[in-house]
Amino acid sequence: MIEIHDHASDIRELRLARPPVNALDPGLIAALREAVGQAPAQGAQALLISGRSGMFSAGLDIPALLAMDAAALARCFEDFFGLAAMLAQSPIPVAAAVTGHSPAGGAVIALFCDWRVMARGAYRIGFNEVQVGLTAPALIRTALARLLGAHRAERLLVEGRMVEAEEALRLGLVDELADVDQVPLRARLWLEGLLALPRQAMRETRALARADLVAATRREHWPLAQFAAVWQREEAQSTLRALVARLQSDHPG
Amino acid sequence: MIEIHDHASDIRELRLARPPVNALDPGLIAALREAVGQAPAQGAQALLISGRSGMFSAGLDIPALLAMDAAALARCFEDFFGLAAMLAQSPIPVAAAVTGHSPAGGAVIALFCDWRVMARGAYRIGFNEVQVGLTAPALIRTALARLLGAHRAERLLVEGRMVEAEEALRLGLVDELADVDQVPLRARLWLEGLLALPRQAMRETRALARADLVAATRREHWPLAQFAAVWQREEAQSTLRALVARLQSDHPG
Amino acid sequence: MIEIHDHASDIRELRLARPPVNALDPGLIAALREAVGQAPAQGAQALLISGRSGMFSAGLDIPALLAMDAAALARCFEDFFGLAAMLAQSPIPVAAAVTGHSPAGGAVIALFCDWRVMARGAYRIGFNEVQVGLTAPALIRTALARLLGAHRAERLLVEGRMVEAEEALRLGLVDELADVDQVPLRARLWLEGLLALPRQAMRETRALARADLVAATRREHWPLAQFAAVWQREEAQSTLRALVARLQSDHPG
Repeated sequence: MIEIHDHASDIRELRLARPPVNALDPGLIAALREAVGQAPAQGAQALLISGRSGMFSAGLDIPALLAMDAAALARCFEDFFGLAAMLAQSPIPVAAAVTGHSPAGGAVIALFCDWRVMARGAYRIGFNEVQVGLTAPALIRTALARLLGAHRAERLLVEGRMVEAEEALRLGLVDELADVDQVPLRARLWLEGLLALPRQAMRETRALARADLVAATRREHWPLAQFAAVWQREEAQSTLRALVARLQSDHPG
Repeated sequence: MIEIHDHASDIRELRLARPPVNALDPGLIAALREAVGQAPAQGAQALLISGRSGMFSAGLDIPALLAMDAAALARCFEDFFGLAAMLAQSPIPVAAAVTGHSPAGGAVIALFCDWRVMARGAYRIGFNEVQVGLTAPALIRTALARLLGAHRAERLLVEGRMVEAEEALRLGLVDELADVDQVPLRARLWLEGLLALPRQAMRETRALARADLVAATRREHWPLAQFAAVWQREEAQSTLRALVARLQSDHPG
Repeated sequence: MIEIHDHASDIRELRLARPPVNALDPGLIAALREAVGQAPAQGAQALLISGRSGMFSAGLDIPALLAMDAAALARCFEDFFGLAAMLAQSPIPVAAAVTGHSPAGGAVIALFCDWRVMARGAYRIGFNEVQVGLTAPALIRTALARLLGAHRAERLLVEGRMVEAEEALRLGLVDELADVDQVPLRARLWLEGLLALPRQAMRETRALARADLVAATRREHWPLAQFAAVWQREEAQSTLRALVARLQSDHPG
């Protein structure tokens, strides 16, 4: 589900490869959390997370999660917020190669990285949790406010609004645009630039500059019970089930 | 002094209607605080605060306040900062339809709302407290820094600078521009968009995203004694009295 | 090393005058700290810090500092961070007339002022500490995030990136551009605007708006031991010595 490519300069690429849309099911989430966690000890000096051309990740795999019991869901959310925290706290720089659409969970992965390169064009990114009946946690608000400021973060989250790449760049939700097939390369070049710098000075300055994000993603701030309770309640269940029914009638399998 | 219009979707409009310029005297401030506070219990799902075409509110009614004794002034400031806090802490979304000029106290009302639509054109908004000898309180600085960032907020407040609508949009002081007669409608459409979302998810996400503003507007942060002391001192009194004399010679009544 | 010019309206200009590039050696740093500290008591109502046409300050005088022992270095860093804190905490407004290039230490001086006017054109400003093997301290990150937001500050510091004047304005790193010979005048006019305001209201509003910066620059936040340790380690020493060798071969003296 994850293809690992080790590039020059000890840059490791983790390419999401769960057809058709890189939906984040419990297996992919756990595998990604593990791969991010292991990379530094295995010699990686920088990380790159990419998707397939046109689709970074469709976010949480709603049909799979709707079929799970409470205990399995709790483990899944634990891995998901654990992944976000691990990206935020990574001792090595992490770039997101947002190779296409990136709603909800896909946007969360990109959010906690150091740098986001997104595919130019009609691809959309955003935190549409509210649209599907879910509450966007404070953890996401804090990280998004670091990028956009408090008011813009409030507006995007409360409205659950998705934006296209150009607007994402203008807002500061992503840092750079590239043609869709150049996105992983551009992200890699950015990481190479960082790795060409005096290493200790770069890493320490990075740690100081991200200390607020590290503090905000400590385990006590993971919204585990809250997110599980929101997921189980009537508003979320009915909205999510209607969404799945619509997807299935659009794409009868 | 306030016209109440209940629109579809349980959107309540509070239209400031104190001729000629919606100056905020103790009566209007108290009435607005009460109307904002009562709306949710009376079934409103969203609030809209508007003025008359060309003038949202001229801010505090300086001639009226200059004639008041210390006890009456203290009650008035208590209501004014209480109003700001009530807007910040409102359980339902609040949009400001800034239908024209909006200096000082008018800008404060808009500042604590969720969203600001302003009339396009040569209308001005801003926190010109310093220009009239008053100190802009930390409460306003905190809320303004949420919109603009700390440095831009510092600059606008210290210089007491008013800006026209286009610059207000560019700075982030307002969120949207509309033709003057369309402002209340545009604000209403924005609220309708929020109310079309899953209600619990929208409200909870909004509460999490505004938690910092709620904390900043708790009663212990109201600058009651400080603002009263500034008002009474020589610099403010002489500046305010000169302002009133100038207004009266411009518009002899 | 500092030329003092007292202008109308009690605006005092401190012009850095240490040829050829206003490099900050221990003497200039100590003199500037003292001059900034004494100005209010000597009647100055506002301060202006300028350089020579084309060069605001080249930053710390690396060759001089490389020749110093640990005790002398410690005194120098104490004066440098003390200068930054004194600018942040100044009871009177301070404008930086960034009359040309302004790397590293030069950018730090400008950062802690109220307002930055920079020379239009191919002049560069930025925090290139990482490029020369030094860690940018949290103190600088905090102040820079006030101007640019947390994410942009992280990016500029970690990459040690210098930017030209136009980009500096766009990012918010400086506040205004002017033709190189007009920079001190423009900064002076800006200060005159502040001084034309009701004085107590302006000063108090300024103090409230800068309270976060004052708190962040209290002595316990000065990175004295940390910066000294970074300076002495192999990565910094070898990078700095290579830099000096390159400068000397470019400009054989």
